[in-house]
Amino acid sequence: MSVTIDLNCDMGEGFGPWPMGDDDTMLDIVSSANIACGFHAGDPSIMFRTAETAKRKGVAIGAHPGFNDLQGFGRRVIRGDSPADIERMIAYQIGALQAVGALAGHRVTYVKAHGSLNNMANEDEDLALAIARAIKGVDANLINVCMPGLRMETASNKIGVRVAREFFADRTYEDNGTLSSRKKPGSVLHDADEAAQRVLRTLQDKAVTTTSGRRIPIEIDTICVHGDEPSAVAMARTIRAKLETNGVSIAPFSGR
Amino acid sequence: MSVTIDLNCDMGEGFGPWPMGDDDTMLDIVSSANIACGFHAGDPSIMFRTAETAKRKGVAIGAHPGFNDLQGFGRRVIRGDSPADIERMIAYQIGALQAVGALAGHRVTYVKAHGSLNNMANEDEDLALAIARAIKGVDANLINVCMPGLRMETASNKIGVRVAREFFADRTYEDNGTLSSRKKPGSVLHDADEAAQRVLRTLQDKAVTTTSGRRIPIEIDTICVHGDEPSAVAMARTIRAKLETNGVSIAPFSGR
Amino acid sequence: MSVTIDLNCDMGEGFGPWPMGDDDTMLDIVSSANIACGFHAGDPSIMFRTAETAKRKGVAIGAHPGFNDLQGFGRRVIRGDSPADIERMIAYQIGALQAVGALAGHRVTYVKAHGSLNNMANEDEDLALAIARAIKGVDANLINVCMPGLRMETASNKIGVRVAREFFADRTYEDNGTLSSRKKPGSVLHDADEAAQRVLRTLQDKAVTTTSGRRIPIEIDTICVHGDEPSAVAMARTIRAKLETNGVSIAPFSGR
Amino acid sequence: MSVTIDLNCDMGEGFGPWPMGDDDTMLDIVSSANIACGFHAGDPSIMFRTAETAKRKGVAIGAHPGFNDLQGFGRRVIRGDSPADIERMIAYQIGALQAVGALAGHRVTYVKAHGSLNNMANEDEDLALAIARAIKGVDANLINVCMPGLRMETASNKIGVRVAREFFADRTYEDNGTLSSRKKPGSVLHDADEAAQRVLRTLQDKAVTTTSGRRIPIEIDTICVHGDEPSAVAMARTIRAKLETNGVSIAPFSGR
Repeated sequence: MSVTIDLNCDMGEGFGPWPMGDDDTMLDIVSSANIACGFHAGDPSIMFRTAETAKRKGVAIGAHPGFNDLQGFGRRVIRGDSPADIERMIAYQIGALQAVGALAGHRVTYVKAHGSLNNMANEDEDLALAIARAIKGVDANLINVCMPGLRMETASNKIGVRVAREFFADRTYEDNGTLSSRKKPGSVLHDADEAAQRVLRTLQDKAVTTTSGRRIPIEIDTICVHGDEPSAVAMARTIRAKLETNGVSIAPFSGR
Repeated sequence: MSVTIDLNCDMGEGFGPWPMGDDDTMLDIVSSANIACGFHAGDPSIMFRTAETAKRKGVAIGAHPGFNDLQGFGRRVIRGDSPADIERMIAYQIGALQAVGALAGHRVTYVKAHGSLNNMANEDEDLALAIARAIKGVDANLINVCMPGLRMETASNKIGVRVAREFFADRTYEDNGTLSSRKKPGSVLHDADEAAQRVLRTLQDKAVTTTSGRRIPIEIDTICVHGDEPSAVAMARTIRAKLETNGVSIAPFSGR
Repeated sequence: MSVTIDLNCDMGEGFGPWPMGDDDTMLDIVSSANIACGFHAGDPSIMFRTAETAKRKGVAIGAHPGFNDLQGFGRRVIRGDSPADIERMIAYQIGALQAVGALAGHRVTYVKAHGSLNNMANEDEDLALAIARAIKGVDANLINVCMPGLRMETASNKIGVRVAREFFADRTYEDNGTLSSRKKPGSVLHDADEAAQRVLRTLQDKAVTTTSGRRIPIEIDTICVHGDEPSAVAMARTIRAKLETNGVSIAPFSGR
Repeated sequence: MSVTIDLNCDMGEGFGPWPMGDDDTMLDIVSSANIACGFHAGDPSIMFRTAETAKRKGVAIGAHPGFNDLQGFGRRVIRGDSPADIERMIAYQIGALQAVGALAGHRVTYVKAHGSLNNMANEDEDLALAIARAIKGVDANLINVCMPGLRMETASNKIGVRVAREFFADRTYEDNGTLSSRKKPGSVLHDADEAAQRVLRTLQDKAVTTTSGRRIPIEIDTICVHGDEPSAVAMARTIRAKLETNGVSIAPFSGR
C-alpha cells in the first residue's frame, strides 16, 4: 500500500492567560492544525504563535471558526442567528486568521467548523450552505473539512467548495455515518493501540464498523486526532507510528 | 483650483441590538468609510451591511481597528500589551474586515487606527511601528490614514506603508500639529459653516491656524467629518457642499 | 372597582456607549423597573443610574437577568448549561444589582427572567426550578414575575418563591396561556387605545380572549408595558391614563 | 509568642473551559480565599465551587474585583473610567459574589482589589476612595485588604472601612512600603524556606528589610501567599509549617 493521509488536530485553544493543550508537541505529530479564531477560544497572539510554529514545522493551517462563546468553548447550542449572520461570522474568523497567518508567513489552506456549529450544520442544510458560502466568498481555494456523507459535505458540493473528508480516530460511528453520542458508553476510545489499529483498518478497507456491527463505506482524507483527553498526545503519536510502520505517509491534504 | 479630496467618516459603530449614527445617509456624503471591526464596536453583520452599502454607493472602505473594549468604545487607554501583541490584534481586525468585505464584493483599501489606540500610537513610536508592520504584513497595498507630522506617519514611512494625511473638520489644532484636547473650550467646532470655511481655507492655503494664532503648514489627503455630535450629518453635508461649490471634487484617496 | 395594579417595564438596556429606550420618561409612567444586569444588556454605571432614577421617582426595581449574550441581547436560545450553572448565573446577576442598587439607596424587591431564558424556563421545569432556587437562595423575600399558569409559576410555588403574575399589554394570547408567536400576524398590538382597552377589560373580567376566541381566566399582579416598538412610551402612557380614569391605581406589586 | 495570622490566596481564577491553579489543595493551606468575580477571571460556576469548597474547609471568602479584562487578566492598566464608574463596577462584583456565595451557604467578609486596579488605587486617591465607598456602600462590615501605609489604606480610613494589612510573602519591598517592580532582579522570592523565614521574622519584628537594607515598621493582619509561580502550593505549605512550628496560629482575620 502506498498511501498518504493527513492528521489534523485542534490547536491554539488557549485564551489570554489560560493555556490549553500541548500544541508544541502536537505540531511535531500532525500535518494540519485547526486554529481557533478568537470566538470560542484563541486570541490574536495565540493565533500568531500557533501559525508561526506550524509554519516552522511544516504543518498546514486551517481556520477553526466557532460560535462567539468563550465561556462555553463553542460547545453550547446557540440558535437565533440567520444563516446570513452565520455566513458573515464565519468569514470574519477566516479573514482574521488569514491576516494573522500572513504576519507569520503562513497561508490558511482550509476551514473546519468547530464544536456545536459543526454539529448543527450537519443537521441544518441552510446553516451548512451558509458556512460553505462564507468559505467560497473569502477564498475559493479553501478546502472545507467535513464528515463524509453529512450535510456539510453535500452543501459544500452544491456551493462548489472542495472538501476533505474527516475520520475521528477516537470515536465510534453510527450506521448513518454520524459519531455516537459521547454519552453512549464506549463511544470515546481511550486505548491508543486500539484507535491506531482501527484507523489503519478503516484506511485500508475504506470502511468502518459501526456500533451496530455493520460495515459502512468511508473515504478519508484526514484523520482527526484531537481529543479532549489528557492522553491526546500519546494517542496521536501511536496513530502516526502505526500508520508509518504500515507504509502510510503523513502529509497535509491541502498540499496535494 | 482643481483639487480632489477625500471625506472619511467612522461607520458601522453599532453593536448587536444597538445602532449608532446614520450611516446610510452619511454614505451619500463621504467617499471613504472607516468600518469598526468588532473590537471597540461593530459585529460581522454590521460590518457586512456597511461594506455592502458603501460598495453600492461607490464609497471606499477601510478597517478601523481599535482596542478590544466594547464598553469603553475603544476610548479608554489600555496599557500592558507588547507592540507584538498590538501588531497581531491590528492584523486580526484588518483580515476580518477584508473577509467580510469580500462577501459584499468590496475591497479594503486602507486602515485608520481608532480612538485611544490612534492617540497612543502618535505618542509611542514602538506602537506606531507595530501598527505599520501589521498593515504591511497583511497587505502591502493598504494605505494608513494618519495625522500629518506625527509618529504614525513617520513610522509608516519607516516601514514603507503609504499614508493618507488626515485633517479633522471639527477640531482645533495646537502648534505641534496635534488636536486640542476636547476639554479645552472651543476645541470642537459646532458651527457647520465655520467648519466648512476652515476646511476650504486649509485645503487652499495648505496651512491651518492653531489655537495660539500661528499658521502651520499642512498637506491633506482626506478630511475626517466624523463627529460624535448629533449634527454630524448636517456638518458633513455643509462641508461637502462648500467644497464642491468651490471646485473641489470629492473622491476616495485610495482610488488615486 | 377599587383596584391597584403594577406597571412594569424593561429598563437600563443600553450598554457602554449605546443607549436604548427612553428610560427617564418611562420611569414617570411605570411602577416597577426591570433592570438589565450586564449579561444581555446594561453595565454597572447604567444599572446605577437606572436604580437611582427609579428611587427618586418612587419606582420599584427588579433584577432582569438574562443569558450572557450582549450581541444577541439575550434573545438567542443557548443550550448546554446545566440547571446548576443557570442557578449560579441568575444569582450572580441578582447580587450584582442588589449591590449597585445599594449604592443608589434602592432595594431590589423582585426578579424577572429576560428573553429566551424566560421562554425556555416556561418550557423546561428543571430550568424554572433552577431560577426559583437562585431567587430564594439569594433573598427569600424576592418576588418572581411570571406568566400565570406556566412552568415558572409552578416551579416558584414548589420552591416557595412568591410570584407576581404578569400580563403583556401588547401581545395576544393562545389558549394555553402562552403568548402568540411574534411571527403570527397581529400578535403584537400597535394601537395604544386598543391595548389599553384590552388591559382594562382583562383586569375587570379576570379573563383574556385568546386568538381562537376563547375566554381564559387570568389573574394579574403586574402589566408589562415593555415594547420593542418605538411607540412604547406613548402606549404606556395611554394604558396608565385609561386605568387611572377607570379607578385603577398604579403602584408596585412589591410594596403590597 | 502567641500570635494568630491569616494566609490569603487568589482563587477561582479559571474561566469557562480553562482552569488555573490548584485551588483545592490551596484551600487546605490558607485561611482566606480571594475569589475572582468574573471580570478579570472566574465565572458564576467557578465562583460557586470555590465558595462551596472554602465553606467546607473553613476558609473565609473575599471578593477579588478587577478590571473587566479577561484577556489581560486584569493586569493591563485601563484608564478612562471615572471614579464613580469604578465604584459601581466594584459594587457589582462584590454583590455578584455575595449572591453566589449565599447559594453555597458562605458569607463574603472582605474585599481585595485585584491586579492593576489595586496598583492604580495605591497611586490615585480618587480611585482608592471610590473603591472604599463601593465596599462601604454594599456592606459596611466588609474589610478591605490593603498594603499598609499606601493610599488604599488611608482612603479606607477616611471613608470608615475596616482594613486588613497585607504582607506579600514572596516579594521584596522598597523604602516607601511598595513592592519592588517584578522587573528588578531578585524582587520575586522563589525559595520557600527563605520566604517563610522572612515572613516569620517580619511578624515577630513588626518590621521588614527593604531592598536598600533599611528596616521599615510594618503591622500585618494577613499574608498573601499567592504566587504566579508553579511552586505556589509548596511555598504556601512551607510558610504555614514554619509559622505553626513557631507558635503562630493560622485563622481568618475576618473572624477576629
